[in-house]
Amino acid sequence: MGVIDQTEVPIKTGSIYPEPYASEMAGRSSLRLGDAGGLTQFGANLVILEPGAKSSLRHWHHNEDEFVMVTEGECTLVQDEGETRMLPGDCAAFPAGDQNGHHFINKTNAAARFLVIGTRKPHEKATYSDVDLEVELKDGTATFIHKDGTPYTGEKA
Amino acid sequence: MGVIDQTEVPIKTGSIYPEPYASEMAGRSSLRLGDAGGLTQFGANLVILEPGAKSSLRHWHHNEDEFVMVTEGECTLVQDEGETRMLPGDCAAFPAGDQNGHHFINKTNAAARFLVIGTRKPHEKATYSDVDLEVELKDGTATFIHKDGTPYTGEKA
Repeated sequence: MGVIDQTEVPIKTGSIYPEPYASEMAGRSSLRLGDAGGLTQFGANLVILEPGAKSSLRHWHHNEDEFVMVTEGECTLVQDEGETRMLPGDCAAFPAGDQNGHHFINKTNAAARFLVIGTRKPHEKATYSDVDLEVELKDGTATFIHKDGTPYTGEKA
Repeated sequence: MGVIDQTEVPIKTGSIYPEPYASEMAGRSSLRLGDAGGLTQFGANLVILEPGAKSSLRHWHHNEDEFVMVTEGECTLVQDEGETRMLPGDCAAFPAGDQNGHHFINKTNAAARFLVIGTRKPHEKATYSDVDLEVELKDGTATFIHKDGTPYTGEKA
């Protein structure tokens, strides 16, 4: 392996989220660079945020470390304590188990990009900070649940 | 955790290599961004190569995946099949166990930088492609050996 031909990497769109959250992810796409390069131990994805798009629901990982470097444009990092503007070269780290949820929003009128690295563990859980939702990932299957452990079948009344 | 203040991250210089190889690493330094951000599952280092400097001896990892994105200047990737010029945004992947050794050389007159991600496994071995040297990493200790398994005590006659 070696240099990754980014023109040959498929652009992934869409979301594994259930509705109504999947619809919130419009304008986000990504290139799975690490997968294209044959890596299995961590994901290395170049995420593209069109104006107004967000990277994900705000979340934190129970078992997996995450690292981000902005590579183009401007991203707004949102955490418990508020917003931080990030420019190309700026980096952020989100250690496994740190309950301060994060996501990135493109509040500008131009596309923004960031590289995100995340460990791949056989069993992972992520908690979404601002909504009643969690996801369990095991054996390649994602199961969405409410925070009380009951299956997610749509927003509670 | 969150945004990493790169002005507060110490610049690491020097090499763990034994001589005469340590001296070959002059002009290389790095910022351990992942460590600064509290990550433990993978390293995320910003490597700075002054003109003429190289990232490492050419090597491959037995157990750990590695991913690189050039962020500034121009780096020359050297592998078995020859050289590839890499510019900012270009990425490369080196899956664990792929015996095609790699390193990066700055052949320009300006500093170059790249971000490198590498899994942290409890036990790792790396083989240096062009010299009679291997390293075993276990419990935080690096042990250098010849390729026949004997301890490295300096270059063989």
